[in-house]
Amino acid sequence: MTALTLISENKLFNGSQRRYRHFSETTQCDMTFAVYLPPQALQGYKVPVLYWLSGLTCTDENFTQKSGAQRFAAQWGIALVMPDTSPRGEDIADAEGYDLGQGAGFYLNATEQPWAPHYRMYDYIVSELPALIESEFPVSDKRSIFGHSMGGHGALQIALKNPERYAAVSAFAPIVNPCQTPWGQKAFSAYLGGNSNSWKQYDSTELLQTASGKLPILIDQGDADSFYPQELQPETFVRTARACGFDIQFKMRPGYDHSYFFIASFIDTHIEFHAQALGL
Amino acid sequence: MTALTLISENKLFNGSQRRYRHFSETTQCDMTFAVYLPPQALQGYKVPVLYWLSGLTCTDENFTQKSGAQRFAAQWGIALVMPDTSPRGEDIADAEGYDLGQGAGFYLNATEQPWAPHYRMYDYIVSELPALIESEFPVSDKRSIFGHSMGGHGALQIALKNPERYAAVSAFAPIVNPCQTPWGQKAFSAYLGGNSNSWKQYDSTELLQTASGKLPILIDQGDADSFYPQELQPETFVRTARACGFDIQFKMRPGYDHSYFFIASFIDTHIEFHAQALGL
Repeated sequence: MTALTLISENKLFNGSQRRYRHFSETTQCDMTFAVYLPPQALQGYKVPVLYWLSGLTCTDENFTQKSGAQRFAAQWGIALVMPDTSPRGEDIADAEGYDLGQGAGFYLNATEQPWAPHYRMYDYIVSELPALIESEFPVSDKRSIFGHSMGGHGALQIALKNPERYAAVSAFAPIVNPCQTPWGQKAFSAYLGGNSNSWKQYDSTELLQTASGKLPILIDQGDADSFYPQELQPETFVRTARACGFDIQFKMRPGYDHSYFFIASFIDTHIEFHAQALGL
Repeated sequence: MTALTLISENKLFNGSQRRYRHFSETTQCDMTFAVYLPPQALQGYKVPVLYWLSGLTCTDENFTQKSGAQRFAAQWGIALVMPDTSPRGEDIADAEGYDLGQGAGFYLNATEQPWAPHYRMYDYIVSELPALIESEFPVSDKRSIFGHSMGGHGALQIALKNPERYAAVSAFAPIVNPCQTPWGQKAFSAYLGGNSNSWKQYDSTELLQTASGKLPILIDQGDADSFYPQELQPETFVRTARACGFDIQFKMRPGYDHSYFFIASFIDTHIEFHAQALGL
């Protein structure tokens, strides 16, 4: 197991907020992540882990600093893990624009150059990072996952393909149908190539129809979100999920936008949703 | 009354988080501030206002994004106002280092050059800003005030000199005796000149002994704060306050540092303290 380098540590709600760096075998570069250990974990209880996947341009710090999630993670006794949104570094491929390259990994395994060697966020999030977390911290092997925008896409497609690994999935303003919307089409054609058949394995709306298990789903969407509905079409996803027999809650939030202020406003209900799915 | 320019607006906890810019007659430059209007204010009720003064290097955004205070402001029905920590701009005097000049106004009226014409944060916070807020927003004339570090110094010295204008004062890790500690000595000698007699009007520990009213005081201090005790000596202040008959609560918080994670951990108790003083 790769060594972890502690970058910072702050006491928060009687738990511990930390940042770590480690060399990832999957992405073949140094990766940074944040973890919040609730007081129950510091007292020696093995707590479940809730993974947060951030949106375009974010690092591990946006959710850590702005969501207020740790108050409720402490209350419920859940560890939070906030990975970065892509590999990063001077030697890592990048592109002009905020929606491709560093900060925009889209939680997939790239097959095309120049992305393929490092842009393997799907394997990193599904396999390497949980193995590391469960080896190095006082946590159980119970997991749940959520995210925002591009990270909502990540959480949904990962959970739908791995229902045995997660108790539930939730998302704020997720990209649910990237094969059909501009951000997704730009990223998928670059990372996965021009054959859109290969894109479907990362499209949550497509995945609903072949999912081997039906974990509970919660989605919040603000109706004042400037990316809604062009990039974000939750209604299609929700309709398909219901037709496929999923237990899905969908909450349209009047007046809320795409920012972390929207996330902060409803983070308590998402943590409670995962706590219940985790049996807390 | 000067015109307000709306910079941004986000729905937050069913209230409204906004940033404004306006020309200040006091500082003779454009100033930026943030305001959180709780749902009660949006429904037409005149709510009291709690002023937050930030620490060195901060703008109006640090507390707005990181504290989580709006959750409790919404719960209690209190408007929050977050001013900037100094005048700013290309034409405004500045200095090397984070602890003097822009981002480090120390909530005083400078008498020395090159600071005197613009660095008048005391008058701005005590007079111009509340008059503006009470004219332009659905708020009452009930006020309370709190802050962090340099902003804790600002809140305490302002409240102690104007007990009729504020219901209570609280602070996280405040500079309480700037005449005797390095940040304060550097700033006061630059802004106020070499005669340290003129400094005492801005030293909270000095002001306790001449205060015309005794408003309730709450102070939190982390014992893992890297600026404690060299810059921060709350015990001296607390002892003097008790000797002078003030109702002061002082909470030493084991393991907490100087960051916004410390503030977020206890923000709920500070908002409740002000709510009670405001008669809510």
